[in-house]
Amino acid sequence: MTETSLLQQLIEALKCLPGVGEKTAQRMTYHLLERDRQGAARLAERLLEAVEKIGHCKQCRTLTERDVCGICANPRRNQEQLCVVENPADVAAIEHSTDYSGLYFVLLGRLSPLDGIGPEELGLDQLESRLDAQPVKELILATNATVEGEVTAHVLGEIAHKRNIKTTRIAQGMPVGGVLEYADGSTVAHAFMDRREY
Amino acid sequence: MTETSLLQQLIEALKCLPGVGEKTAQRMTYHLLERDRQGAARLAERLLEAVEKIGHCKQCRTLTERDVCGICANPRRNQEQLCVVENPADVAAIEHSTDYSGLYFVLLGRLSPLDGIGPEELGLDQLESRLDAQPVKELILATNATVEGEVTAHVLGEIAHKRNIKTTRIAQGMPVGGVLEYADGSTVAHAFMDRREY
Repeated sequence: MTETSLLQQLIEALKCLPGVGEKTAQRMTYHLLERDRQGAARLAERLLEAVEKIGHCKQCRTLTERDVCGICANPRRNQEQLCVVENPADVAAIEHSTDYSGLYFVLLGRLSPLDGIGPEELGLDQLESRLDAQPVKELILATNATVEGEVTAHVLGEIAHKRNIKTTRIAQGMPVGGVLEYADGSTVAHAFMDRREY
Repeated sequence: MTETSLLQQLIEALKCLPGVGEKTAQRMTYHLLERDRQGAARLAERLLEAVEKIGHCKQCRTLTERDVCGICANPRRNQEQLCVVENPADVAAIEHSTDYSGLYFVLLGRLSPLDGIGPEELGLDQLESRLDAQPVKELILATNATVEGEVTAHVLGEIAHKRNIKTTRIAQGMPVGGVLEYADGSTVAHAFMDRREY
């Protein structure tokens, strides 16, 4: 073992964080060891606890340390609205920015046959049995506005239509603060096509 | 404990990393839990091991898991050159980019009376006894080119001059690839003043 090995090992380990390369990992390592060893120790504990205890909600598949997450377990949430998203982070984004009070279903991905992600991986059978068992009146498709997100939304739409469930898709258009001149063509086209009465 | 608490605790803990705010910490948390639990567990171990075992070199004060770091312990390093830097990261930068083969002394900071950082915190007494005991022929001042780094270099220079030790300061001027038009005034002034025969 060379004298820098523990340092170097920590630098390597930090690179598992998204967006963190060699330089940033170095900076983080020196910062933690020189200025915040307590923070580093606390981070280590939290990581271990999270990895060990956080799993997926049995009902909606979001990340939670319980069997059923707080949203699914809350009887005051509207049981007739079900919003389908790709990731647990999307649940957080919607909860944070809207007053949506229905339930969620988290795909944990998007249809991507090339990566071997099909209906099974996304729990679509689980979603179908849920739609059969529960009185869902609106299925909100909130997958991303990417090609794969659109394909996934299309398949979800077919599942809902078979059951005569009303389906909605989150709007596409100009982001708030967006400038027409700098927006990409498809965004402008969508915004123009889906224009609303004013 | 709410259902998001472990998630939220991990997000909080990640904010101890420099440059990581709420949004980035969230992204890191979801990434680790959904895609790289192994990396997260390894990171936790490395953090704990580093915090527990990495201390400061008795001789040069850099970060190391040994009593005396590999550079200080290496008999082939030139014992007559001593380079003073602010941080362990500076040692890594110099080792990485130059063929310097002398020794180091790491201040672990810079003179900053307002923050309560004086000569004692920087180990200047330790540096002085080392200069008295060892045959140092050149003291290289490689503190940062900031106001505090310059003040620190000045004080170090006085310590060396008292002992008639040759003192050098790393050059200031245009960074490689730098464009005169966009460089700040003091950099241009320094580069112009310190121009070399060509």
